[in-house]
Amino acid sequence: MLFIIVHQTFELWFKQIRWELEAVNRRLSSTVLADREIGKIVSGLQRIARIQLLMFEQIGVLETMTPLDFLDFRDRLVPASGSQSVQFRIIENRLGLRDRVTVGRQPYTAALSPEHQAMVARSEQEPSLFDHVERWLDRTPFLHVGEFDFWTAYREALHDLLGRERRTIDASGDLDDHARAELRARSEKIFSAFETLFGPEADQESMTAEKRRLSQKALLAALLISSYPDEPALQLPSRLLTALIDVDIGFATWRYRHALLAHRMIGGKIGTGRSDPSYLEAAIDQHRVFRDLSDLPTYFLPRHALPALPPDVLEQMRFRYGDD
Amino acid sequence: MLFIIVHQTFELWFKQIRWELEAVNRRLSSTVLADREIGKIVSGLQRIARIQLLMFEQIGVLETMTPLDFLDFRDRLVPASGSQSVQFRIIENRLGLRDRVTVGRQPYTAALSPEHQAMVARSEQEPSLFDHVERWLDRTPFLHVGEFDFWTAYREALHDLLGRERRTIDASGDLDDHARAELRARSEKIFSAFETLFGPEADQESMTAEKRRLSQKALLAALLISSYPDEPALQLPSRLLTALIDVDIGFATWRYRHALLAHRMIGGKIGTGRSDPSYLEAAIDQHRVFRDLSDLPTYFLPRHALPALPPDVLEQMRFRYGDD
Amino acid sequence: MLFIIVHQTFELWFKQIRWELEAVNRRLSSTVLADREIGKIVSGLQRIARIQLLMFEQIGVLETMTPLDFLDFRDRLVPASGSQSVQFRIIENRLGLRDRVTVGRQPYTAALSPEHQAMVARSEQEPSLFDHVERWLDRTPFLHVGEFDFWTAYREALHDLLGRERRTIDASGDLDDHARAELRARSEKIFSAFETLFGPEADQESMTAEKRRLSQKALLAALLISSYPDEPALQLPSRLLTALIDVDIGFATWRYRHALLAHRMIGGKIGTGRSDPSYLEAAIDQHRVFRDLSDLPTYFLPRHALPALPPDVLEQMRFRYGDD
Amino acid sequence: MLFIIVHQTFELWFKQIRWELEAVNRRLSSTVLADREIGKIVSGLQRIARIQLLMFEQIGVLETMTPLDFLDFRDRLVPASGSQSVQFRIIENRLGLRDRVTVGRQPYTAALSPEHQAMVARSEQEPSLFDHVERWLDRTPFLHVGEFDFWTAYREALHDLLGRERRTIDASGDLDDHARAELRARSEKIFSAFETLFGPEADQESMTAEKRRLSQKALLAALLISSYPDEPALQLPSRLLTALIDVDIGFATWRYRHALLAHRMIGGKIGTGRSDPSYLEAAIDQHRVFRDLSDLPTYFLPRHALPALPPDVLEQMRFRYGDD
Repeated sequence: MLFIIVHQTFELWFKQIRWELEAVNRRLSSTVLADREIGKIVSGLQRIARIQLLMFEQIGVLETMTPLDFLDFRDRLVPASGSQSVQFRIIENRLGLRDRVTVGRQPYTAALSPEHQAMVARSEQEPSLFDHVERWLDRTPFLHVGEFDFWTAYREALHDLLGRERRTIDASGDLDDHARAELRARSEKIFSAFETLFGPEADQESMTAEKRRLSQKALLAALLISSYPDEPALQLPSRLLTALIDVDIGFATWRYRHALLAHRMIGGKIGTGRSDPSYLEAAIDQHRVFRDLSDLPTYFLPRHALPALPPDVLEQMRFRYGDD
Repeated sequence: MLFIIVHQTFELWFKQIRWELEAVNRRLSSTVLADREIGKIVSGLQRIARIQLLMFEQIGVLETMTPLDFLDFRDRLVPASGSQSVQFRIIENRLGLRDRVTVGRQPYTAALSPEHQAMVARSEQEPSLFDHVERWLDRTPFLHVGEFDFWTAYREALHDLLGRERRTIDASGDLDDHARAELRARSEKIFSAFETLFGPEADQESMTAEKRRLSQKALLAALLISSYPDEPALQLPSRLLTALIDVDIGFATWRYRHALLAHRMIGGKIGTGRSDPSYLEAAIDQHRVFRDLSDLPTYFLPRHALPALPPDVLEQMRFRYGDD
Repeated sequence: MLFIIVHQTFELWFKQIRWELEAVNRRLSSTVLADREIGKIVSGLQRIARIQLLMFEQIGVLETMTPLDFLDFRDRLVPASGSQSVQFRIIENRLGLRDRVTVGRQPYTAALSPEHQAMVARSEQEPSLFDHVERWLDRTPFLHVGEFDFWTAYREALHDLLGRERRTIDASGDLDDHARAELRARSEKIFSAFETLFGPEADQESMTAEKRRLSQKALLAALLISSYPDEPALQLPSRLLTALIDVDIGFATWRYRHALLAHRMIGGKIGTGRSDPSYLEAAIDQHRVFRDLSDLPTYFLPRHALPALPPDVLEQMRFRYGDD
Repeated sequence: MLFIIVHQTFELWFKQIRWELEAVNRRLSSTVLADREIGKIVSGLQRIARIQLLMFEQIGVLETMTPLDFLDFRDRLVPASGSQSVQFRIIENRLGLRDRVTVGRQPYTAALSPEHQAMVARSEQEPSLFDHVERWLDRTPFLHVGEFDFWTAYREALHDLLGRERRTIDASGDLDDHARAELRARSEKIFSAFETLFGPEADQESMTAEKRRLSQKALLAALLISSYPDEPALQLPSRLLTALIDVDIGFATWRYRHALLAHRMIGGKIGTGRSDPSYLEAAIDQHRVFRDLSDLPTYFLPRHALPALPPDVLEQMRFRYGDD
């Protein structure tokens, strides 16, 4: 009974998540995103993240079953595996998940019925949340404003900071030569990685080598938004980026919790003496849609080292009520 | 400020967990475990699991910081890494963690001060929760009672069940030859794995090959307790095993959440295009103290297929008040 | 959409709670409760408490709606009020709720359809969880064992403790006469309240004056179980009492959270300048089924002041395996 | 041990809440609130709400103690009552709590030491969060813009809606005369309550009769912000109002949970047969600082009935980047 009820509530929550996701995608799809929409988009993503927390709690309710309780009805569940929810597959596709880790050589939809396979296939066709977010970032108007070029300004500031750090390292009496060399190498690595990712010479090849999915321009826009989150015009956009990371991590954690639950109920893999980690690794590392956003803080500058935005940029980022 | 407060509360909770853990270890250490103690042991472990849930929530509070907020004071934290809590290392040792996954060739205590290293070293010496649990399971009086031998009875029941399954597989018209062969191979594998683990010929070599830590007798006792959890004398012992798994999974989840938080605040590893999964894998698979207990359900029989306990065993497992 | 999904999941969880509740009632209903059943009863109640935590979280998900969002579809909900769940009414009756606080002079089922009214009426007829628990407590075999009479022993111990307290109060130089008199009066009040509730002269009249629902004998049994929770035969019974309190408080908190949500979505009562507290008070104080159990700690003695159980009682409370 | 640890962590979280609260108050105190600050204010309040959720969980950890465990050290706690935290009193004052419900005729600081009383007294002097929020709302620039007067426009829209409702009521064949009269009376009551609260003739007397604390202008500004939450300039302000309600309800729930915990550990009030509800009622109804905001939805109009904002108002509420 519990298993069935939990299953039904999961499907209801998947339905709600799909609904919210489609609403977010629809709002993001207009070529010129009206600022009026962005608050609703953020609220929609935050609601998905809230529902994810609830879904983790539901797994906790399932864990009040013992493996022996679970065995009582497992026979009746074969061959349909509980984790094969068509709705979840559709959600993954609408988020923009690609390159799923699959067990064996089967396509990831192998366990589904033909109708469900068709539904899932259709959900791969339309632009996903990832696509919409990338386009929205690509359109950010603040990367070039008049004389101001964000990339140049940021690059200089990063260069300055690393220079100061290097001088501190050289002057430090606490460090031996080895430690000094290591720290110096690290700072050079950050700068050259930044050049590779964001520099004018960045080509798709190096992006692919870095396993980036977001375009260079979109990444740079995300860097700008995250660096000046208090400017009025960036307050909601920076919350949007945070909410995307929350949702992305939420699904990773969902897979992790689900894999733990399965291990706990069914036991380890026979004859290997260990549970199969392939799904778990995948959950954490490869099944992330917005990993580029989680990775971005590598290139963040502390507030004191950020380039100051020029007055005309600041002016465009604020409201001008009351001063007409 | 938030970072410091969260850090302090974590240390307070670690302190409480250590306190509960030592109380549990103390109660388990008496050669003859008085039944009066077992309720308190279960409550202690359940309280640790409850505190773990709270600690996950605390990570959620930390996540209200943005990576940019985090950068503001990260400089002041170097070189002390936040995850290097001496108390957490001691807790791991008192649980019975061995063979830690380490980064580089450094011992896992390298980042600690000499006094802390000494404290941690001491915590490795005394018998851990794992040791106490193993001895307690080894002492279980119900594996052999009069004529009754649990291993023989269970082995027969397993044999019968697999036989019935095989006949069902052979008779099934829905399966093609390949699927039939696969299912048959799987059922043989379970039986032969059972023989290897529990059979009279089980030697330490095969146990090690299976990466088992618990003794054969302790594993068998855990199987008995988990199979008859409703017998009065096993109601608390079965809850004890569940609580051990809860606590073990709790620490794994703690490491997972902590690694996600670090990734989110600091970003991905430079120049590799991916976060470093070594710690994550470790968190999930190798840093488990009671994995043998989580793996056990592989060998569980459904209730209808379990061997019936003979009357004299049942008699020893119940109270006899009121009938004198 | 969200409102409908949350509503449907609530109904599913109510269904699960009903199912668990009926299973608990069925197990408790056998005249001689086999000890084998008590573990399952405790697990069932603990699962209900776990589901309640989930239901609180679900209210949190609903709170991601603003009152303005809520207004969009409120019109379509009238006149059916969301809180009028027939399943919840049935659950309340199966728990043993009586004397509901009602708004106006309407019966509490007025808002339901005739079929639902009939279902609710039926759920009032059969013995409730309260009835089953009372009978189970009434049957406790340990109140009188040979020469041992729990009431007499406990009464003496309470008398001794209060005597010691009074001497401490009298000897204390820190207290003025007023404080001394107050503390003395309080200790007399506890003793006389104990005599009233538990003494041989306790009649139904004084029980009613005290608004007690549980019989004197059941209350005394609950006192015994709570005072010696480590004795093997009382480990599960004491957990059962705790789980009953958890479930009872869980439903009170549910009503409280629900009332807060309603206030938040709909606003305060018009023209009074304050929200209507009648439902809230009721939620906390009158709609409690097992309040007698929550109230009981008033009469608890600290462990050092408890009467020692005689050897023949202790003997009946423990297992005797291995010593035949 | 657990009790002490929980107490210490509570004090740490109170410290963090005070720190966040002072930061919010400081940012709100500038006469012209820069829009750059509002994102941080919202984040600060949302963090407090998140910490409150954690504090509820901590009470759950305390509830793993039984009343008997609690008795073991209660003697050592007298006469200092656990709930008398000086930090909590200061937080209440910095929020703007007034007119506390007190037990007996004692001032609410009676249980504190003289130094702590002085600290608490000082915390009453400076402007509280309530004061700052009221002033910020009073300054809202959108109530009168050119020809547009929000009060007039909203009043007309409310009048129109109630007129339409009345015509629907009159035309409805499903209602008997009594029900029709009741619905009509209700709609008249809302309108006249609106006139009383917001009309030009609203004087302090009627506001006091309604037990309102916020000024008429501040209330009207809150109504405007809540009615058009999607306009860019109101996206953060509307989140700010929601966060204030969250925090306010959070502290009410904290008091409720704390009172339940105390009841559970200590038992009911002696000789009355019921727990003392005075503190509980207070928790829910009187100890609310921003109840005016929770009550406001009474006067909300559904989106379709809201007056349209004129173009010049909408223009002031949006960003104008990219269009210079």
